Amino acid sequence: MQFTAQEISLLLNGTVEGDAFVKVDKLAKIEEGEAGSLTFLANPKYEQFLYTTNASVVIINQDLQLTAPVKGTLIRVENAYSAFTVLLEQYNTLKLNKKGIEEPCFIHPTAQVGADPYIGAFAYIGTNVKIGDHCKIYPNVNIGDNVTIGNNVTLFSGATIYFDCVIGNNVIIHSGAVIGSDGFGFAPNPDGTYTKIAQIGNVVIGDDVEVGANTAIDRATMGSTVIGKGVKIDNLVQIAHNVEVGEHTVIAGQAGISGSTKIGKNAVIGGQVGISGHINIANGTQLSAQSGINSSITEEGKVWGGTPYMSYKDYLRAHSKLRKLPELDRKVYELEKLIEELRKKGH
Amino acid sequence: MQFTAQEISLLLNGTVEGDAFVKVDKLAKIEEGEAGSLTFLANPKYEQFLYTTNASVVIINQDLQLTAPVKGTLIRVENAYSAFTVLLEQYNTLKLNKKGIEEPCFIHPTAQVGADPYIGAFAYIGTNVKIGDHCKIYPNVNIGDNVTIGNNVTLFSGATIYFDCVIGNNVIIHSGAVIGSDGFGFAPNPDGTYTKIAQIGNVVIGDDVEVGANTAIDRATMGSTVIGKGVKIDNLVQIAHNVEVGEHTVIAGQAGISGSTKIGKNAVIGGQVGISGHINIANGTQLSAQSGINSSITEEGKVWGGTPYMSYKDYLRAHSKLRKLPELDRKVYELEKLIEELRKKGH
Amino acid sequence: MQFTAQEISLLLNGTVEGDAFVKVDKLAKIEEGEAGSLTFLANPKYEQFLYTTNASVVIINQDLQLTAPVKGTLIRVENAYSAFTVLLEQYNTLKLNKKGIEEPCFIHPTAQVGADPYIGAFAYIGTNVKIGDHCKIYPNVNIGDNVTIGNNVTLFSGATIYFDCVIGNNVIIHSGAVIGSDGFGFAPNPDGTYTKIAQIGNVVIGDDVEVGANTAIDRATMGSTVIGKGVKIDNLVQIAHNVEVGEHTVIAGQAGISGSTKIGKNAVIGGQVGISGHINIANGTQLSAQSGINSSITEEGKVWGGTPYMSYKDYLRAHSKLRKLPELDRKVYELEKLIEELRKKGH
Repeated sequence: MQFTAQEISLLLNGTVEGDAFVKVDKLAKIEEGEAGSLTFLANPKYEQFLYTTNASVVIINQDLQLTAPVKGTLIRVENAYSAFTVLLEQYNTLKLNKKGIEEPCFIHPTAQVGADPYIGAFAYIGTNVKIGDHCKIYPNVNIGDNVTIGNNVTLFSGATIYFDCVIGNNVIIHSGAVIGSDGFGFAPNPDGTYTKIAQIGNVVIGDDVEVGANTAIDRATMGSTVIGKGVKIDNLVQIAHNVEVGEHTVIAGQAGISGSTKIGKNAVIGGQVGISGHINIANGTQLSAQSGINSSITEEGKVWGGTPYMSYKDYLRAHSKLRKLPELDRKVYELEKLIEELRKKGH
Repeated sequence: MQFTAQEISLLLNGTVEGDAFVKVDKLAKIEEGEAGSLTFLANPKYEQFLYTTNASVVIINQDLQLTAPVKGTLIRVENAYSAFTVLLEQYNTLKLNKKGIEEPCFIHPTAQVGADPYIGAFAYIGTNVKIGDHCKIYPNVNIGDNVTIGNNVTLFSGATIYFDCVIGNNVIIHSGAVIGSDGFGFAPNPDGTYTKIAQIGNVVIGDDVEVGANTAIDRATMGSTVIGKGVKIDNLVQIAHNVEVGEHTVIAGQAGISGSTKIGKNAVIGGQVGISGHINIANGTQLSAQSGINSSITEEGKVWGGTPYMSYKDYLRAHSKLRKLPELDRKVYELEKLIEELRKKGH
Repeated sequence: MQFTAQEISLLLNGTVEGDAFVKVDKLAKIEEGEAGSLTFLANPKYEQFLYTTNASVVIINQDLQLTAPVKGTLIRVENAYSAFTVLLEQYNTLKLNKKGIEEPCFIHPTAQVGADPYIGAFAYIGTNVKIGDHCKIYPNVNIGDNVTIGNNVTLFSGATIYFDCVIGNNVIIHSGAVIGSDGFGFAPNPDGTYTKIAQIGNVVIGDDVEVGANTAIDRATMGSTVIGKGVKIDNLVQIAHNVEVGEHTVIAGQAGISGSTKIGKNAVIGGQVGISGHINIANGTQLSAQSGINSSITEEGKVWGGTPYMSYKDYLRAHSKLRKLPELDRKVYELEKLIEELRKKGH
């Protein structure tokens, strides 16, 4: 996919300075731009690179005054950053614009697939599955029986959706993610063995959700594990049975949420955070990386850290002293001796 | 799958009160019951919902005395909870009752598959594999050469079993789980590079084990990584080479066990726990979530927490003081000044 | 695969003592050796097992003096440990010596596959993919469009490489690993929602890298996420977008590295370690298990631990005192009372 400076300028409603017919076929950062690449300058602190970059085309702001000669072609636009974002998005859409049905794939006769699909080879679509329009089902994806999927959904290679789950519109699920595996529920027996508790619920994922690679979201024991609209989940996250995550909450890599816990809206959960089961986390809560949350948080919009957790301010203060704990210990020992001395002196 | 109240009552040896011909096609919690659903009341604290639920059928205890009218049909049984558990299990069995061999799948001519199998499309069964009776191999499962699998085993979509591994009877392995990947063994060279140590052992999984989604269990360097009978492993757990896990031990999500460590029987390992290599953990040990275990635990049946770990009681006491560490620090500083003052006053 | 003591001795340039025609078909540790197995004795502390093992063949050092009779056949070599390592490697090579192309697999007509490949059933090889010589692509592997793969690469079942990524020579990627999933990049909007930032970069993996099962390495937003030559990554590791890992660094299981962080060469990152985004970690740094690294480390070759992190020595000292914190607290309380007493006595 090659484009001339002219073509890009037209798309961005810009003006060309220099060779309008130079061709580019990739996007780059300004400091890494090579011949054949397109880049942009938005942040003045990178202006130096404008005069040294080897990029063939650079998008710049309308009003930028050059202070030295540039090698490549310039495209002036009102807002270079926004213009580049538009290109990024378009480039990405082109990259991901797969169409058609590759063979062999498995589509059960009872399954319904909407308009304009991509279905990769070795994808599996089970009994009574309903898939909306403009969906992309990459190779080796597994969609279990009775799953319902909205419009504009992308499931990357090797993602698995267990039976009965429901996926909203505009959802992206990355490779290796597993949606709807059994919750971890076992009843202990007097002899030390466990009996499995059947997990007959499902997972319901709202619109505009993204789920990262190799993340696991378990089905509810009964009812639904619910991922709210707009939630963004990173890689290798564990979400246990009957958890509910409120709208527009963000969960970073390797965090884990135990069974039946309810996370509010607009929360931010850091990497490797662990959250106990059967608790509630208020809207807008922020949890710093690696913190361990073992009881409900009821105040909205606060920041917390540590294991067990405390306010982020307390956490920073306490842990700054932790390193000095041996010195503190020593001081107390010295004080004990001094007081003993004072007391011996006849007090 | 629709059933009448009458049919369910017969199955449970109960008695019907109300419309015996009302039909249900799903199970629900009593507080969420809609028309067409079946629910139960066992815990007296939920009795209020009995009079408000829209569930079409409710299973209740024989001796429950109604204090208000109910909308749906009742089925009285000796123990409502047990009866519902029976239904859960039956419902689950129906859901998972897949049969037959879907095409295309790959079954090597030297492989042996027992009676009554389900083998999904795109499942791969390698050379000399032996699979017992009544096994369910979901789509896109990979079974490497020389693997042996018992009876009544379920491997969900995308699970992978590397060559030479052995899986017992009644085992359930969820999607994305990897059994038998190479142990993480490298010999350091003087120049800073590493040489891979060939990992030629296998993984042996006992009867009645469940392995969660995206969990990884590495093969032994030599000999076997062993998962004992009845062990239950949650999602995203890491079990390194040559680990041995004793019977009926439970391992929660995102826990990790390093190489050659031996875990006793009936232990409970919390979420995100990390356990060092080459140590032993006694039978019945309980490790609280996120704890870090860096030396052997020899006393049986104790509870531990923290990183580095201490008794759970010490852990709770120490961490309750941790938040106050800055105040303690301040107090010691004040004491130092006071004592200095006392000493100056001529002592 | 059966071999006689004679054949093995020839291969190792050794000398046989005992029955040269006894056959072995597996490798074992000396303490676990059964009839039909081959083992070795290198560490004098295991010498007792030489006289009790049931292994059919034992490799020993040239100069070992027997102090009792042995049951099996001996092969004397200059260095028993090295000789056994050679056998391990050969055994492993035989085990993994798969060849040919299994059907059905999907190889796009524009893809190029080098000499001597193994391509398993249900493997997917996309548009313009280039694969070098002697590569092994196991069943259900997914290789996206425009991926380039070097020589002697092994991708185990179910590994996924997203489009545009580059894999060097002699790389091993285990089952379920995902290379090139989207970085976790979202721009917050004033209304609390998030807009996805297109992730158009790729992942570049150097020669001699090994990637563990179910590990996830995200593609760069722009440019490349880079895994240097000789890096060894364990299972379930999270590597975020635009991270760079220096040559011959080792990363243990369940560690996580946040976006744009640069890890130096020859570092050792322990299990479950978390590293913040946009920081630098010096060459040769060692991070103990579960530590949390929230700022750059500039000194080379040091050891660190804890969350937030401190020098490993400080970490050990501080945490050894942590358990005694309640006692320290009590002591300070006692001191306060004593001083109050002293002051009351007229000072």
